[in-house]
Amino acid sequence: MARVVVDVMPKPEILDPQGKAVLGALPRLGFSGVTDVRQGKRFEVEVDGDVTDEVLASVAQMAETLLSNPVIETFDIRVEGGEGE
Amino acid sequence: MARVVVDVMPKPEILDPQGKAVLGALPRLGFSGVTDVRQGKRFEVEVDGDVTDEVLASVAQMAETLLSNPVIETFDIRVEGGEGE
Repeated sequence: MARVVVDVMPKPEILDPQGKAVLGALPRLGFSGVTDVRQGKRFEVEVDGDVTDEVLASVAQMAETLLSNPVIETFDIRVEGGEGE
Repeated sequence: MARVVVDVMPKPEILDPQGKAVLGALPRLGFSGVTDVRQGKRFEVEVDGDVTDEVLASVAQMAETLLSNPVIETFDIRVEGGEGE
């Protein structure tokens, strides 16, 4: 069993209201020194067996069709050490 | 300028309806071989200057008080290569 992580983030040119809300709240909570915050999604996809090129291609297609909106978001896929074996 | 990434994920023992929804949709879309999906949040926090231990401690406090709900979520903080310099 292995874990593939898909990070989905709003494109840089797209307004990110959630990130802006966090950024606006930080000074009120006493935090300084932060210039920008962007909020996206993180998916942990557990796959059966080894992570072959085929599996990665399948996850990439998943990310493009289900996990992200390619019009406003970019995604990044990477393999993480699986739990167990 | 440097970027600190905060990953917020539901705790393993907490039901993750968003992840379950994705997991349920995959077979209908023709994807197989995925045994579990969990969905969390990813924050990209841009900080002024270098990432010192103090800055990391401040981001950790941010993560605990604003970015995550410690009752149901765990978070993970790491430094990523900044853009620009």
